[in-house]
Amino acid sequence: MSGKIKKIGVLTSGGDAPGMNAAIRSVVRTCAFHNIECIGIYRGYQGMIEGDFKEMGPRSVNNIVNKGGTILKSARSKEFMTPEGRKKAFDNLQKAGIDSLVVIGGDGSFTGGLVFNKEYGFPVIGIPGTIDNDIFGTSHTLGYDTALNTVVEAIDKIRDTASSHNRLFFVEVMGRDAGHIALNAGIGAGAEEILIPEEDLGLDRLLESLQKSKASGKSSSIVVIAEGDKMGKNVFELKDYVEENLPEYDVRVSVLGHMQRGGAPSCFDRVLASRLGVKAVESLIAGKSNYMAGLIKDEVVLTPLEQAVKGHSEIDRELLRVSDIMST
Amino acid sequence: MSGKIKKIGVLTSGGDAPGMNAAIRSVVRTCAFHNIECIGIYRGYQGMIEGDFKEMGPRSVNNIVNKGGTILKSARSKEFMTPEGRKKAFDNLQKAGIDSLVVIGGDGSFTGGLVFNKEYGFPVIGIPGTIDNDIFGTSHTLGYDTALNTVVEAIDKIRDTASSHNRLFFVEVMGRDAGHIALNAGIGAGAEEILIPEEDLGLDRLLESLQKSKASGKSSSIVVIAEGDKMGKNVFELKDYVEENLPEYDVRVSVLGHMQRGGAPSCFDRVLASRLGVKAVESLIAGKSNYMAGLIKDEVVLTPLEQAVKGHSEIDRELLRVSDIMST
Amino acid sequence: MSGKIKKIGVLTSGGDAPGMNAAIRSVVRTCAFHNIECIGIYRGYQGMIEGDFKEMGPRSVNNIVNKGGTILKSARSKEFMTPEGRKKAFDNLQKAGIDSLVVIGGDGSFTGGLVFNKEYGFPVIGIPGTIDNDIFGTSHTLGYDTALNTVVEAIDKIRDTASSHNRLFFVEVMGRDAGHIALNAGIGAGAEEILIPEEDLGLDRLLESLQKSKASGKSSSIVVIAEGDKMGKNVFELKDYVEENLPEYDVRVSVLGHMQRGGAPSCFDRVLASRLGVKAVESLIAGKSNYMAGLIKDEVVLTPLEQAVKGHSEIDRELLRVSDIMST
Amino acid sequence: MSGKIKKIGVLTSGGDAPGMNAAIRSVVRTCAFHNIECIGIYRGYQGMIEGDFKEMGPRSVNNIVNKGGTILKSARSKEFMTPEGRKKAFDNLQKAGIDSLVVIGGDGSFTGGLVFNKEYGFPVIGIPGTIDNDIFGTSHTLGYDTALNTVVEAIDKIRDTASSHNRLFFVEVMGRDAGHIALNAGIGAGAEEILIPEEDLGLDRLLESLQKSKASGKSSSIVVIAEGDKMGKNVFELKDYVEENLPEYDVRVSVLGHMQRGGAPSCFDRVLASRLGVKAVESLIAGKSNYMAGLIKDEVVLTPLEQAVKGHSEIDRELLRVSDIMST
Repeated sequence: MSGKIKKIGVLTSGGDAPGMNAAIRSVVRTCAFHNIECIGIYRGYQGMIEGDFKEMGPRSVNNIVNKGGTILKSARSKEFMTPEGRKKAFDNLQKAGIDSLVVIGGDGSFTGGLVFNKEYGFPVIGIPGTIDNDIFGTSHTLGYDTALNTVVEAIDKIRDTASSHNRLFFVEVMGRDAGHIALNAGIGAGAEEILIPEEDLGLDRLLESLQKSKASGKSSSIVVIAEGDKMGKNVFELKDYVEENLPEYDVRVSVLGHMQRGGAPSCFDRVLASRLGVKAVESLIAGKSNYMAGLIKDEVVLTPLEQAVKGHSEIDRELLRVSDIMST
Repeated sequence: MSGKIKKIGVLTSGGDAPGMNAAIRSVVRTCAFHNIECIGIYRGYQGMIEGDFKEMGPRSVNNIVNKGGTILKSARSKEFMTPEGRKKAFDNLQKAGIDSLVVIGGDGSFTGGLVFNKEYGFPVIGIPGTIDNDIFGTSHTLGYDTALNTVVEAIDKIRDTASSHNRLFFVEVMGRDAGHIALNAGIGAGAEEILIPEEDLGLDRLLESLQKSKASGKSSSIVVIAEGDKMGKNVFELKDYVEENLPEYDVRVSVLGHMQRGGAPSCFDRVLASRLGVKAVESLIAGKSNYMAGLIKDEVVLTPLEQAVKGHSEIDRELLRVSDIMST
Repeated sequence: MSGKIKKIGVLTSGGDAPGMNAAIRSVVRTCAFHNIECIGIYRGYQGMIEGDFKEMGPRSVNNIVNKGGTILKSARSKEFMTPEGRKKAFDNLQKAGIDSLVVIGGDGSFTGGLVFNKEYGFPVIGIPGTIDNDIFGTSHTLGYDTALNTVVEAIDKIRDTASSHNRLFFVEVMGRDAGHIALNAGIGAGAEEILIPEEDLGLDRLLESLQKSKASGKSSSIVVIAEGDKMGKNVFELKDYVEENLPEYDVRVSVLGHMQRGGAPSCFDRVLASRLGVKAVESLIAGKSNYMAGLIKDEVVLTPLEQAVKGHSEIDRELLRVSDIMST
Repeated sequence: MSGKIKKIGVLTSGGDAPGMNAAIRSVVRTCAFHNIECIGIYRGYQGMIEGDFKEMGPRSVNNIVNKGGTILKSARSKEFMTPEGRKKAFDNLQKAGIDSLVVIGGDGSFTGGLVFNKEYGFPVIGIPGTIDNDIFGTSHTLGYDTALNTVVEAIDKIRDTASSHNRLFFVEVMGRDAGHIALNAGIGAGAEEILIPEEDLGLDRLLESLQKSKASGKSSSIVVIAEGDKMGKNVFELKDYVEENLPEYDVRVSVLGHMQRGGAPSCFDRVLASRLGVKAVESLIAGKSNYMAGLIKDEVVLTPLEQAVKGHSEIDRELLRVSDIMST
């Protein structure tokens, strides 16, 4: 089968993440290394529908390994959710001679790829790119390690004020369905308490923990909260609740927001992106399709795309215990 | 008069700012250099009232030149606003043999120092420390240059997403009464439009500017908004207003928040802090009082504290024109 | 046996590494969590000999999780290599009631701990802390991930000049016996070629690779060289050799040096330090001794200290191939 | 005269510096704002000779305000030093309809522009771009503020090791003829002693200062040395000299090197670049020529190019005194 692959299309889809450019670069150069043509598809599936393609050689990806965002741009495409949209996309791929796809993105992007594969038998390999680390089949998604560093650096700055003023800060970080960022960055930033969607700590426990912290002589505290935390309150309501119940606290809120998605990728994300790009292209060459290339226990491995989409990326519960001990 | 000064008290007050520690270090070491004793007063005026003092020698301030926040901590003191509070403070200073004060802080802190001086004739020199740069008598307050870099670095990250997704971002930065941060960081970050308290751009002008920007072929835009912007809407209302009137835009909001106050000071802030600390102590030695040490046209100069408090730090209006041209 | 442990001594030894402070904090707080006393030993084994001890409670390690270096300081101790030195150390530990040790450091530090254990039966657990990642029994040593980020950030800056001037840069990074930093940071920084001690690329291959790179249209290049590279030439001789043989090249050299050892630890290093500190203390409590706590395939595990010292941490040879493909 | 200017050429020349891209962007957009054409000239004067030109509109300079290096590339041109080279350059400019030049660079670049102007009467405005800050007629050159921050951040990292190991570090920074970087970054980094070309401190004074420092209880020290320091020894010889004379010291050397030239520009450099670009273009429009746009006492002003080349940028000697006091 390996003779079949001649021209690979590569696209980024969904929310952008640091390391996407490094992955594009890796896909493009691995293609060149194996004498396969490579076409960049702009704005994800929407660009497929509109035929927004550009030939890419090894020099097209110079000096991007360290850039955040994605030079291929990203977009969410409603039209690709319709059979008509996918038909247009398929026609464009055929016209351009593209015979296989590397999709860099998250769950939604992979689902799109799966449907497309089912309808048209088009070979697809996914590379997990999202800061949320919420994809089954990889211990790390591209951008996650970078986002952790961005978050701890921001909280380090907030801590300067917290400890200068003996204050309590609630810091909201990204993670609508997954507490990976909150849990790891919370430990990294020395947070007093960490609230994540996977674990309903309960409001009483939070109050108790803050009281214990004050009693233990801590003069300032940081609580890290995942945006998807399931305690039924958003971060501003939480502030009100705490101030009502613990009037000795003057709580400040900081929502870190979109800066978590950007910035130069960490070395880890750049190396991971390079490895996954090689694996994706070489898997297509080897005739494999409908897989995601990911990292499991430090090894680059393939997981069926269907599993990647259906499975759930669990947090490491031992870290909850570590966090507890660290806030002694 | 110079013979009189024997023991200087130093405190930080109001919101913390990067460079405060470098200023404390400078005050302490300049005292040591001139064989004057130096006492650190914790938690601003509140610590004066509570007698929270600590002797400081040159080794007490090792390795703090690069630390954000303030090792002397800061607090707002309601009690110091009462004559009784100030009486307690004065008694504590007398008991400790402190005969003059260096106050590192902003407007409010200087007003406290002035009142105290009027009541007790206590020599006070101020050093302007606040990220907002809203103090008359100095072109730069401590922390301002650092905050500008923090803001442009954060917006650089947001720009990765903005340009990957062709999106419009509203970024709110600090500056309740002064647009210095918004104006300078806005130009530095390449903002499309900058909204500041000093200038009511008007909602129509904003819409017009965004339309012009799209027409000129820009695919993504950043609008920087000072928290104190006077357009009568907060940043979230502004988003709604723009989305209603320009439905082609999908606006995202990011409120940078407290991280702007922290972080390792820039080289500029460290050098400025060192210079102002020397000036403050040597001015007290020279028998001067009730002044603020500041930077005007690259020179360290003294401004009467009363003027510093009453005067207004104007933005450089030429920068508005530069910003306009840059968004061509 | 678990009843026996009552007072743990913790020290840092050998070259400092980012994350050592986070590990100290974790050891101290895990002790407090389990109601065990904890004593900080200053300046490594030398401090043990001199009895330079300090009691540490959970508040002694506030606000250090994000600090580079080690608050316990480090030193190399010749005296500890003598039986007399170790006798003094043992006597001091006994006098202080310390009954077990956590040693944070590298190979040499662990060897010291082993000898000490053999002579006095003193329970020791090691935590691997060194930027070089050259310790068997852990995929990551503390400080390694941080150093990788420091190196790629520095090379990103050098790349600005390289590509502005179409120049070739040789960048020397740390790693006397191990190419981990060079290999990973080289891929992360998009290096043209990577020279490491584990692999004698040969001078001809280097020239060939540079010529190929020029032919492929690259206008600037970065070559990353581990300080312990075995090609028989140091980085300056290598520059001369290349300029002699490829006169079209004007080579610049940059030796990154000691800044690679410092800086705020990455989130990864902080979390790893927290996990290893918990494991170290809880292993001592569980009666285990003479192990190193490390990370293997994302799990925290124990490796006999003897193996950790004798074994060799291999580079991932697949990365050599990835590097080759990436420089297409 | 203002009617005459129709097409401005812009080039970067000499060593690259952060902020050059922001200045290019400003020149290009100011041209667009005033409906003047703008041509980018690649690789400085060499590109003028080779006719390496490219039309630039406001969208050609999107997303470069925050990038180090120069998108127009830089080179040193021996050919431009000959009348024949300059003749070719002039012919190319004429052919392309370019009627005036903005030269972004340092002393050498301005000298080239002056000679060219004398021979061909070609209008030239200079913008000072070099990290060394060694140009008369401006308090700050583009890239200088960024380089200061790069240096203090690097030394902050080195300090982690210095204070963990109680060691003495000699850190060499850029500045062949000017001690601006060493002096300011030295104060910013809390250096014990600062050696600069403008001031022959003398070897005895250095030894004395180190001894005093040890006596005062400092356990670690940083000495910052400008590469052009005139003490007759390079940094490695200095290390040997100190170790010979003060055997209690174990000196480490770090040469920061080329990373000082790169990186994202600071906010200050971006704003300054924007302002100087506006001034340069508007000065040409106003019929002015042979000036450099610079910053003096916070104001953007013009200095005759001849003076800029001949004059000398003095260090602020008061800073030497501040440095002395700070190392108490």
